[in-house]
Order: sequence, then structure tokens, then C-alpha cells
Amino acid sequence: MGAIATEVVSGLAIAQDTRIVLTVIDGLGGLPHPKTGQSELETARTPHLDKLAAGSVLGLCDPVGVGITPGSGPGHLGLFGYDPVRHQVGRGALSALGLNFPLQPGDVAARGNFAAVDAQGCITDRRAGRIPTELSAKLCARLRAITIPGAECFVQPETGYRFLLVMRGAGLSAALTDSDPQTTGQPPRPIRPQQPEAAHTAELVNQFIAQAHRILTDERPANAVLLRGFAERPSLPSLTELYGLRPAAIAVYPVYHGLARLAGMTVLDTGTDFAAEVETLRKHRAEYDFFYVHYKWTDSAGEDGDFDRKVALLEAFDAHVPALLDVEPDVLVIAGDHSTPAVMGAHSWHPVPFLLHAKTVFPDQTTTFSERACMQGGLGRFPATDAMPLMLAHAGKLAKFGS
Amino acid sequence: MGAIATEVVSGLAIAQDTRIVLTVIDGLGGLPHPKTGQSELETARTPHLDKLAAGSVLGLCDPVGVGITPGSGPGHLGLFGYDPVRHQVGRGALSALGLNFPLQPGDVAARGNFAAVDAQGCITDRRAGRIPTELSAKLCARLRAITIPGAECFVQPETGYRFLLVMRGAGLSAALTDSDPQTTGQPPRPIRPQQPEAAHTAELVNQFIAQAHRILTDERPANAVLLRGFAERPSLPSLTELYGLRPAAIAVYPVYHGLARLAGMTVLDTGTDFAAEVETLRKHRAEYDFFYVHYKWTDSAGEDGDFDRKVALLEAFDAHVPALLDVEPDVLVIAGDHSTPAVMGAHSWHPVPFLLHAKTVFPDQTTTFSERACMQGGLGRFPATDAMPLMLAHAGKLAKFGS
Repeated sequence: MGAIATEVVSGLAIAQDTRIVLTVIDGLGGLPHPKTGQSELETARTPHLDKLAAGSVLGLCDPVGVGITPGSGPGHLGLFGYDPVRHQVGRGALSALGLNFPLQPGDVAARGNFAAVDAQGCITDRRAGRIPTELSAKLCARLRAITIPGAECFVQPETGYRFLLVMRGAGLSAALTDSDPQTTGQPPRPIRPQQPEAAHTAELVNQFIAQAHRILTDERPANAVLLRGFAERPSLPSLTELYGLRPAAIAVYPVYHGLARLAGMTVLDTGTDFAAEVETLRKHRAEYDFFYVHYKWTDSAGEDGDFDRKVALLEAFDAHVPALLDVEPDVLVIAGDHSTPAVMGAHSWHPVPFLLHAKTVFPDQTTTFSERACMQGGLGRFPATDAMPLMLAHAGKLAKFGS
Repeated sequence: MGAIATEVVSGLAIAQDTRIVLTVIDGLGGLPHPKTGQSELETARTPHLDKLAAGSVLGLCDPVGVGITPGSGPGHLGLFGYDPVRHQVGRGALSALGLNFPLQPGDVAARGNFAAVDAQGCITDRRAGRIPTELSAKLCARLRAITIPGAECFVQPETGYRFLLVMRGAGLSAALTDSDPQTTGQPPRPIRPQQPEAAHTAELVNQFIAQAHRILTDERPANAVLLRGFAERPSLPSLTELYGLRPAAIAVYPVYHGLARLAGMTVLDTGTDFAAEVETLRKHRAEYDFFYVHYKWTDSAGEDGDFDRKVALLEAFDAHVPALLDVEPDVLVIAGDHSTPAVMGAHSWHPVPFLLHAKTVFPDQTTTFSERACMQGGLGRFPATDAMPLMLAHAGKLAKFGS
């Protein structure tokens, strides 16, 4: 990342009674539909975003680096100003954060799946037919009966077939391989240490798995567990420590709450749709000076390969732009954590459209909000870690560097 | 270089049955002709490249860094994904690689010129009237009679007046100054150590030069040798180690074979023109998944200051574009190792046009292939080391970063 060092930006931070709203449209970037040659954003009717673009500065943002396809974690951390290569967060830690589980130093967390295995112990379904959260919660309650000498185990349900495992005890290490082979037709893999000091932890986790499989043996379809992403509690300086911000997060899904907490944001209670999120923003507008507002649904449509639904969801977002402006942010950013082109049905490495609106921008000549407009934008192509100094600057929250 | 760390990209590499073709047009970038205001690329009629540009993403590539004029070595290494500042390869090592000389650890290699000196020992021609390879080979055979106590000497002819000197022995060091003053009217300079531990090697090389001059004293025009670019064997991780690629190189001239071998590429036998190179590519298309194909002649025309010849050579390249596409590369890149504007008659620091064609590109709005079109391209301006992650990503050879 070629961006200015966080330490330099942090050293310039000053208090200023201004408000930043960073809106993250998940999986924002797309690719042209083979029939029309137009991307999701280019196809969508987005009059409010287009009007906003005309008075804003646009650009294309690389979340992690050119050519790198980001997961949700690194995609967000970059926009929050943290170099995602320097700050790598394991899936287990992300799950714990999402559930607001109070991970302590030394704890080891893993993301679990309830899965189905056949009589030979080979995986037939890595998600156990996507069992509902209610069943998962009952199974988690049964797994809490597991006792491992030398470690306390916490098992908490996430959404659907997902759960969180946390082990707490002396001398644990997260340097462990996954048991999830990420494919079917094979048995779950034994957990192995990646470093010698993790050998003891590997043994304890394998004991947990063996006991779990005994407990689940007569269950259908969820008769096995898969564990992956072993991680310890990550430690990032908060946005308050770095820039003196009072940051708040508005998001529907737990994993984004977890990411926001990593950055030291207060997670605000909200509803289950974007109208509720915008209402939460309006209600709390005076209490915080940095809001991260997350719009999830575009990514899901992209991952499903549903071009038309992604278009419709971009149009639905567009309808909320006036309400975002009504909050009178001094800086309003419309960004994405990564691209999810519907034609690929997956996250991709393509740079992500970025729009910055503030009284102090030099508007470029773009009059629409799209990938191609952003290619011509005044911000050019830049690493995501540039977003935070840009937002702070346009909010008047950075002092002069040098005399 | 602001690019993502090689280690990160390497860690994401996955196997995928796709093919990358990286075409390097040597000295591709140019400058406007003072009479027409159009560069070599803008003047050339390149219908195939222009058509390709319309379905591709373009940009401007800095081989080493903004303002830095690259030699052939760094210009290529950047495109191969190696930071050319971190991996500096001496001219002597490059010569050895080009001749496929088995340089061993501890060997010291230098690039030699046969030159002409007058009765006072002052250089009258640094290239001895560009003597032919046949004469150079005979002179090299005579120089092999030289014996130096404590070191074995290898002398091998390159093309024309060029030769390679390798010294092998205990305690040698390549930290030596050149004997070639890079100008006429002066005597060759004595070799001096750049570090104290190289004093012994300097003495041995000066003995070699003294003996060579005695042997050549009655030769005309080549009665002297000039040595430069003392270097030891460089060690780069191969593209196979880094990314699991099976890489092959197709180039006419030895120095490019040497650069390709540095990156661990297999050098394929080919003919003496670009048609032969494309035929070699076609023939071996199924055996490798990364091809570096080199087009030399544009650079020579640029160095000769021959604007019209460079234009004609760009047009000649253009005619081969359909044959390159016939190989059905999943990723086709048209790049250059550096600019060689004919109006300057030399390599230059100007950023180099870059075109990437793949099913997964978001085509920008450019419809021609030229410096000015690339200024408007969707890739923006980027360091050459971004090229490798870009090519790998578009070939589906990189996994997601983080969850």
C-alpha cells in the first residue's frame, strides 16, 4: 500500500465539530453484462447517485492491492484506514467479534460449521443442509457438555449452520490448521500445529472434535463439526486513539458489527433493512462524528450471480440517498468493500467505485456513478487506506504537515 | 514501489488451467514527432491493436519508478513481478545468463567489449568498428591462453564485439569498478576495488587485462578489451516457486534469454524473427501456462533515432496480433520494458503503454493503443510490479485474501 503512514495521519488529527458518513455498499463493483456491455451500476437507474456524482469527486479504490480479491474483513479494514496486509484478522476472531463474545488475550477462537458425514465419516454436506439457527442453537447447547482437561470451551450459535468455538486456558496457540477440507467426499482433517508450541492446543481441539462427533452421532443431518480460521484476539488501535473520532457503526449483520468493533466503533441497534439503518443514523446524528453505514444486499445478489437483483438493489439504495443527505454530513462517501460482479458470482479483484462528497471537493467532470465514470474520476486509482486521510481532510480534522 | 508484497501474492497462488501471454515490445513508449505532434504509436497504423484496445483495459506502467530510466534488466524484471530495486542484476551476470553459462556461487562475471586503442593507449573506438562475431570468437579463443594464478578464466564470445569474462576461484568479489570509461580519447581505467575484500580480485582482473593487451597488441582494429558490470550470480525465487507457474520464454536475443532464466523460465528454441516467435508460441501453447514473448526491433529503431523505422516496426507487430489471439490466451498483455522515444534516441523514464485483455476485464473507453489512450485507461498509472498480480488475477490463479 503506497498510502501515507497511519502514524503521520494520526499525528495530524485535530478536533473539529464535523460529521463523516462512510457508506459501504457491499460488493459494489461489477462487470458488464455480456448482452448489454453495461455493468450493474451502469444498468441501474440511479438519479440521486448521478446527481451526487456531478458535485463530487470520484475514483477507483483497490481494497488490498492490485489483483487481490478481498474477503469482507480486509475489504472493510482498508476503508477504516488499517492496512489489511499488516492487520490480518482470522475468521474465528471475526466470528467472536460479530457475536460480541468478550475474547480475552490468550483465547483461541474458531469458526465452526455443523456438517453431515456418511457412515465412513466422509463429508456429504459442509453445511448440513443449511440447518436453521434454532437447530444450531440446540446443538450448541449439547456441545457445551464437552469438558477438556486444561481448557474451558465456549460454544455459541451464529446464523444458520455456523457456530463459534472459543477455548480458554494456559499456553494455548492459534497456529493450527483447519479441520474443514473445504470440499466433500473426504473426512474432516485432524487439526495440526503450524508451530511446535501449538501442539498441545491441537491435541485439545482434536479431543473437542472427537467428543462433539460422539454427541452428534445420531443427529440428522448435522452429525459432525468442521472448524477453521483459528485465531487469537486481534489488537488494533481504535479510531478514537488514532484520530480522536467518536465512531459508530450501523449494520444489520453480525460480522460487520465485529469489524466495526475492531476499529473501536460503537455498534448502534438498528432494524433489518436499510430504511431502518438510515433512521438509526438520523436519530444518532448528533452523538457521533463518524458513521459507518453498511448496505449488505448487493453483495449477496452478486454472489448469487443475479445481475437483475443486484441492479434492483442498487436502485433501492439510490432511493435512500436523499435521506443520507438530510443528515447533513460534512463528508459523505459512497464506497464498497470489494467488487462482486454478478457475471462472476463471487468477490473479485476489480477496483471499487468510490465517491466523495463534501463542500471542499474539487468536482471532476463525471456526471454518473459507475465503474467507467470512476475510471475518469479526479481521485484516480488509489489504495483503500487513502480513504481515511481523505475523509478526515475534507472534514477539517487534519492539521497542516510541517511549517 | 507501492505494489502489494510479492509474499502476499505468492501465498494466494492457486493452480488453474489457464494461459497467460505477456508480450513485451522493447522500448514501446515514444514521444511526439516535432513536426506532427504524434508519437510513434500514434503515427503507426495499428488496426488490430486498436480493436484489441476497445475490448481491453489500458494504463501507463512505470518500470522502476517515476522518473527512472530503466535498462533492459530492470525493465523486464518489474514485468515479471520482481521489484527491480530489490533485485539488481549486474551486466556481467546478465551476459552469463544470456549465454547460458553455468555461473556458480562465488564466480565473478563481467561484460567485455573488444575495443580499439591508439599508440598512446587511448580508446579510439569502444566497439572496435563493431567487429563481427566470427572475429570476436577467434580473439576469445586466443584470450583463453591467459593464465592467472589463483583463478580460472572463462572467455566466451557474445554477438559482435561483445564477450563474457568469468573468473572462478577462492575469495573473489564482484565489488569492482569498470575499466570501460564509456568514452573515447582516454585509456581504459585500471580496475579498482569498491570494498577492501575485493582488492585481490581487482589485482587478478588487472593481470588478465594486461595479458589480454599483450596478446592483442598486433590485432587491428580490436587491440584492447574493456570490462564492465562485474557481478556475481543473482538468486531470484522462480515464478514456479512463487506462483506455481510453468513459464516459458520466446525471444531472439541472448540477453532476454538470460533475464527469463533468472525468473526460472524455460527458454524455447525459436527463429530469428517475430513470425518464428509466434509460431513457437503456437507450437508449445499446451505445455506452459505463462509465456513471455519478446519483440526487440522497436527498441533498436528508437535507439537509432529512426522514428519512421520504429513506426514501421510497430505496424509490423500489429500484423501479428491476430496470430497471438489465435493461441487463445486467457490473459494477453501487450507491454513494454521501457520507453525508447526515437526523438531522444535512447531509453527514457516515460511511463510505458500497457494493455490487458481477458474475459474478466472491465473495458475502459479507449479505442486506440497509444500513450495518450493509456493516460485515460482504466488501469491508471501503476508500477510494473502490479502487472504480475493483475495477470494472475485475470487468469483465475489467485485465491481470495482473508475472509
